[in-house]
Amino acid sequence: MKKVINIETFKLFTDITGTVQNMARDWAKSGLVHIFSTHTTGCVRVLENEILSYADIRFWLDKYTPKDKPENRRYLHDLISLREDVDQDERINGFAHMRSLFFNTSETIPVAEGRIVLGKWQSIVFVELDPGDGEKVKTKDRELIVTFIEE
Amino acid sequence: MKKVINIETFKLFTDITGTVQNMARDWAKSGLVHIFSTHTTGCVRVLENEILSYADIRFWLDKYTPKDKPENRRYLHDLISLREDVDQDERINGFAHMRSLFFNTSETIPVAEGRIVLGKWQSIVFVELDPGDGEKVKTKDRELIVTFIEE
Amino acid sequence: MKKVINIETFKLFTDITGTVQNMARDWAKSGLVHIFSTHTTGCVRVLENEILSYADIRFWLDKYTPKDKPENRRYLHDLISLREDVDQDERINGFAHMRSLFFNTSETIPVAEGRIVLGKWQSIVFVELDPGDGEKVKTKDRELIVTFIEE
Repeated sequence: MKKVINIETFKLFTDITGTVQNMARDWAKSGLVHIFSTHTTGCVRVLENEILSYADIRFWLDKYTPKDKPENRRYLHDLISLREDVDQDERINGFAHMRSLFFNTSETIPVAEGRIVLGKWQSIVFVELDPGDGEKVKTKDRELIVTFIEE
Repeated sequence: MKKVINIETFKLFTDITGTVQNMARDWAKSGLVHIFSTHTTGCVRVLENEILSYADIRFWLDKYTPKDKPENRRYLHDLISLREDVDQDERINGFAHMRSLFFNTSETIPVAEGRIVLGKWQSIVFVELDPGDGEKVKTKDRELIVTFIEE
Repeated sequence: MKKVINIETFKLFTDITGTVQNMARDWAKSGLVHIFSTHTTGCVRVLENEILSYADIRFWLDKYTPKDKPENRRYLHDLISLREDVDQDERINGFAHMRSLFFNTSETIPVAEGRIVLGKWQSIVFVELDPGDGEKVKTKDRELIVTFIEE
């Protein structure tokens, strides 16, 4: 069974556990659920949904993969004038590509008789690595593909 | 088929390849095995089970995600007095949450006729990111959910 | 269904999307495809196949997990004379083991009626973390195990 989750967010972390749980209940079987982001700067991660821990992660990312760099130290991905495959108004998101190395394109989670099996502190989280942060940005439509596999 | 692995350890790395292999032999089919940690500070990773490489990883983690920080630079997750969802004696493990970004909640590994398919140098490893290190800590019971899916 | 991809490369990033897509077309069903590297210093990652972004990743890795370190700060894994399990001419690749923490041993990707489901900017990439870089190195034969699971 395949399902789609559409997300439109400017937040770094979005808890999608409830949405996936509802799909699992409809499926009502046992096996695995696989949640896949169709984006390179939007990821899926099992995390503790705790705002202070999220702030720790954010500060770490800001330190080791800063968004803004001095002009002569820019992310090469952001040298738009060198790239033939993109428009002139392409997003400046080299930092977000770097950050994707610390998250995942997908997560796979056990399902037992229509219930996703998560530990007490675990949530399934969509991670928007290029979230805007108060800039005027184009609305982002993110799409996740959810696949259920029977055991 | 679902199985459970219980682990009680104060070690950073625990090789669980043999346990998973025994389960695969009982299953005796072909497909995939998925090993899922139900914890946010305990992970699963395919690694080379080599003590000097483990020491390299440990030193890297200590450098870039130090356990102890100066009082005014604490992990925010460790400001227990700000959090409503936890007891006063909650573990101080903000560092372990950061470290989880470099490991995985689960790994998925091919199985061929009851044999897990691993390369010469690969082991399936449980990574306890909040291991105690000589402190008097509460015993930890970690639980992994192992799911076999036929191809 | 299981398939094998053999790769012989000295490049850091090798796009294998087309190869996996061809296998999926032959399979012609719906479910998941799992691509597993049987190596500890060769990984699989969904990435944007863009050379400047690749250069950003390479520079980040060079900065935080440098290949060469001063003699007295070597990766411990490279102290070959301490290790009983390897020959004297074992590769000096402690840096590559560290880098594997930022990539994956495997990726799992949705398949819909014989087509892998990827976003516009996503490619399936084999990441050779110990690529030689102009040194005279032994040819490397890397093997990936590809497993298709029906939903």
